[in-house]
Amino acid sequence: MSASPRPAVTPEPPYYAVIFTSLRAEADRGYGAMADRMVEMASRQPGFLGVESVRDAESGLGITVSYWADESSIRAWQENAQHRLAQEVGKQVWYADYQLRVARVERAYGGPAGR
Amino acid sequence: MSASPRPAVTPEPPYYAVIFTSLRAEADRGYGAMADRMVEMASRQPGFLGVESVRDAESGLGITVSYWADESSIRAWQENAQHRLAQEVGKQVWYADYQLRVARVERAYGGPAGR
Repeated sequence: MSASPRPAVTPEPPYYAVIFTSLRAEADRGYGAMADRMVEMASRQPGFLGVESVRDAESGLGITVSYWADESSIRAWQENAQHRLAQEVGKQVWYADYQLRVARVERAYGGPAGR
Repeated sequence: MSASPRPAVTPEPPYYAVIFTSLRAEADRGYGAMADRMVEMASRQPGFLGVESVRDAESGLGITVSYWADESSIRAWQENAQHRLAQEVGKQVWYADYQLRVARVERAYGGPAGR
């Protein structure tokens, strides 16, 4: 399962966002399959609210934002064994650079209902 | 100026993130030029810390995350007249769907220094 190409539908704030920005190294080396698997696994975690993910094939820059009910859900997913393995391979093989930020969503607005 | 294709370099938390996820309508209709102009203007605002922006040309889904020192910097940028005009045109013309979320970044980790 890949993230659907729509803004995620999330409940009223507060909730949490994990903003993962990464610059890919050049070769794929199994990245695509692992990324799909991680999204599928995350979506079955307690507290998971949704995910948005985009990568620019040309520059290699990607942004994945996953949304969670609370910080303990995020911590549980970060400690998942298969996810930890993927994180390690990411650091060693897949990413030339990355930033992971955990943030508390305080307000949100959306469309097209807002038109 | 476009956002550079790297994860943004930001200070130690806490700071704020504006996560803007949008699904583009089909035609460009001046969008690209306006988006570049908005990034250039935002980067000159007080409290601006950085921006990351990626759009998938195929699906039309884009994620732009801008980082700010505090909420008052975000509010000042949201009230900027040219930005308000761009927001209105976005709602009416450019976006089939969008979500804007304001979040307080509480922790952050990065690489490649973390290897």
